[in-house]
Amino acid sequence: MADASPLDSVISLAKRRGFVFQAGEIYGGSRSAWDYGPLGVELKENIKREWWQTFVRGREDMVGLDSSVILPKQVWEASGHVATFTDPLVECTSCHHRFRQDHLIEAFEAKKGREPKDGMSEIACPNCGTRGQFTEPQLFSGLMKTFLGPVDSEAGLNYLRPETAQGIFVNFNNVLTVSRKKPPFGIGQIGKAFRNEITPGNFIFRTREFEQMEIEYFTAPDEADTYFKEWVETCWNWFIDLGIKPENMRRFDVPEDERAHYSAGTIDFEYRFGFQGSEWGELMGVANRTDFDLGAHSKASGTELSYFDQATGERYTPHVIEPSFGLTRSMMAFLVDAFYEDEAPNAKGGVDKRTVLRLDPRLAPVKAAVLPLSRNEQLSPLAKDLAADLRKSWNIDFDDAGAIGRRYRRQDEIGTPFCITVDFDTLDDKAVTVRERDTMQQERVSLDRIRGYLAEKLIG
Amino acid sequence: MADASPLDSVISLAKRRGFVFQAGEIYGGSRSAWDYGPLGVELKENIKREWWQTFVRGREDMVGLDSSVILPKQVWEASGHVATFTDPLVECTSCHHRFRQDHLIEAFEAKKGREPKDGMSEIACPNCGTRGQFTEPQLFSGLMKTFLGPVDSEAGLNYLRPETAQGIFVNFNNVLTVSRKKPPFGIGQIGKAFRNEITPGNFIFRTREFEQMEIEYFTAPDEADTYFKEWVETCWNWFIDLGIKPENMRRFDVPEDERAHYSAGTIDFEYRFGFQGSEWGELMGVANRTDFDLGAHSKASGTELSYFDQATGERYTPHVIEPSFGLTRSMMAFLVDAFYEDEAPNAKGGVDKRTVLRLDPRLAPVKAAVLPLSRNEQLSPLAKDLAADLRKSWNIDFDDAGAIGRRYRRQDEIGTPFCITVDFDTLDDKAVTVRERDTMQQERVSLDRIRGYLAEKLIG
Repeated sequence: MADASPLDSVISLAKRRGFVFQAGEIYGGSRSAWDYGPLGVELKENIKREWWQTFVRGREDMVGLDSSVILPKQVWEASGHVATFTDPLVECTSCHHRFRQDHLIEAFEAKKGREPKDGMSEIACPNCGTRGQFTEPQLFSGLMKTFLGPVDSEAGLNYLRPETAQGIFVNFNNVLTVSRKKPPFGIGQIGKAFRNEITPGNFIFRTREFEQMEIEYFTAPDEADTYFKEWVETCWNWFIDLGIKPENMRRFDVPEDERAHYSAGTIDFEYRFGFQGSEWGELMGVANRTDFDLGAHSKASGTELSYFDQATGERYTPHVIEPSFGLTRSMMAFLVDAFYEDEAPNAKGGVDKRTVLRLDPRLAPVKAAVLPLSRNEQLSPLAKDLAADLRKSWNIDFDDAGAIGRRYRRQDEIGTPFCITVDFDTLDDKAVTVRERDTMQQERVSLDRIRGYLAEKLIG
Repeated sequence: MADASPLDSVISLAKRRGFVFQAGEIYGGSRSAWDYGPLGVELKENIKREWWQTFVRGREDMVGLDSSVILPKQVWEASGHVATFTDPLVECTSCHHRFRQDHLIEAFEAKKGREPKDGMSEIACPNCGTRGQFTEPQLFSGLMKTFLGPVDSEAGLNYLRPETAQGIFVNFNNVLTVSRKKPPFGIGQIGKAFRNEITPGNFIFRTREFEQMEIEYFTAPDEADTYFKEWVETCWNWFIDLGIKPENMRRFDVPEDERAHYSAGTIDFEYRFGFQGSEWGELMGVANRTDFDLGAHSKASGTELSYFDQATGERYTPHVIEPSFGLTRSMMAFLVDAFYEDEAPNAKGGVDKRTVLRLDPRLAPVKAAVLPLSRNEQLSPLAKDLAADLRKSWNIDFDDAGAIGRRYRRQDEIGTPFCITVDFDTLDDKAVTVRERDTMQQERVSLDRIRGYLAEKLIG
């Protein structure tokens, strides 16, 4: 039990190496949000780029959108968020900490394998341990308010979006016109969303500010179910193709009484994050939103959001399949899944423990590190020139400090696929040694081939 | 006077072709923010990618960061924003419209070439025309509030960031440690910022929600001025390299009394947007922020944000040079600068007027369009296969509707550098006709060379 869990090791690594910092750390920090450091921002951007290429740019039936965080409040009234985007809040009457009632019940069920009897009476406060002393649940809005204009009045009240989806629905007619698509087609969007979570926690898993990657896929009503199933498979395969191990991901067919108000069917993907208590956590969901959203906005705005099918001469409100990915949760899953501790040979002929992130090369924040064997007036400029040249195409590290074995370890633990050593032979043979991260195999590659070598291997 | 100005034509094109939509349009719309449609999001992403590659990934002395929008309020107290991030608000006592006093004065000066006499008495209300009937100016905070946690109380009061910069300053020690950089080095960030503008307007130029691309470059105190000058040149060259015409951009050395409270020197770049009244508008600024921010946060947080120089044995607070780019303003400038109306040959041997966006190929939202000469059972599948193959690397349009000349016009006005026509000869010679946007020159390229052909031409 003294051993740190793999999740703790990943979090520790992420903080130590600058993937993730606590927001406002010098002022005591916040659990509402996290900041992404030099490696974190590269990893996160790589995930976004892969997603956009796979689901938007690479598909004829998809287009992209980037709608605003702040939308008129009528949008959130029509979508049902103002009325129903609420969580049940309970307060421990002993220590006055507040919790989401559904989270307390879920944690109890995960631990005991059964539902709690007599409401909350069996449940202990996670903060002070007092059992069953909670207030009655109060519904608490997850929408974050802000005020536009000079006065904090009802007229200026706006909400920060709790999901990117509504920005897509209200632009349905606009996109239909300019893109000249017809159902089935989809709109993809990546962006920030904000939810006033009662209990943010579990590192970057549950935060008040987060990023989503969402698709709203519009179909004829009778084809919705077919595309729902297809999108579940497509999303599953995206994670597997980028390296997530199938045994660490599972599908959860959300029962009707747990689904969002708009959903006629939801499959959640859960990832084995290894949280204390409940080791699985939601990674993404695919929902069949039916014609709920387009219908609701048509009714509220007086603008008909629909499609006229010239082939059949009929107008209909498309149904919507929504694959909704948590970007920051995906990043956390890729980190956890890539984390390994194994052994590497050391200079004394023995082995050392090493930490390695076996990230897919497409996701790795640094693609290659250039390591001159020593600080030398001939090697250094050669190595710097090589790094500068490769930097035109990729994110490249340069490291000339310390023993070569130690420098390999530093690159291994941030997932750099290739280390390129410039040594004294390089001066003669115009070649460098390339070491691959996972196999630790080394290969001599001539300088004039190194760019092509990396280009080929980094495609993944 | 009946002719639309070029700016009006650009705005009209941007709306018609789906670069930019009004946020919440079906609910009457908002001037606070805009939504970026399928072409807008690609153009905006291309600008971001070029910026990140040039200023962050491509430079050894730079690293990236992505800090949160919501930061603890102590950050904004220390930075001076809570006390001084205010604008002077005046209200017309006749029509009750509100304005920024400084904007009214600037517009007067631009029109008359002199300062107004007797305060506001010469100035007419832009809404109702009444002259000199304004309330005394009131200072109005540009910070947008939100509340975290279950109660809208002072304890939960937070602000949305009005600039991305402060997220960089408060992470200075974190980044210094993990990146092992030493001054001079910089941190780059792209992200949303929010300002409660009194009068949003001029399309995407002044909005309450917008995007910035910011660099904070940390130097030894005695080197600040050198790097200030260097960054002014570097930023200037970035715009020129991506196609902005030098005659449409100018530098403005901001006088001391107009600078932000932290600045010891600011050069603004202004672009000739062609607004009514004042045709130039601020595009970006390079500021010498001295040690103001690191000093202020050190004092307020009790954490010393400084650098220990091992070579000299001295500890100092780095000075900061800040190149701050408006992303959405940059996008608007690239659109305005690329807009041309010229002539193209038509099928009757005459010429037609055409609209063309001469965007740099690196920025163009669609890189190539595949156009089968007719809808034919042999041509269509061949053209679709070609489009699908190219789509693995680039954003590609496919269009088989209407006359070929009309399809060229559609691509010209969104700036697509290459149109690829698949015709009946293609079935025999396995080649396609590539038409270049600006010269309208056509070239026959074999199918097995087309990918390499585009790869070479699209580098810019």
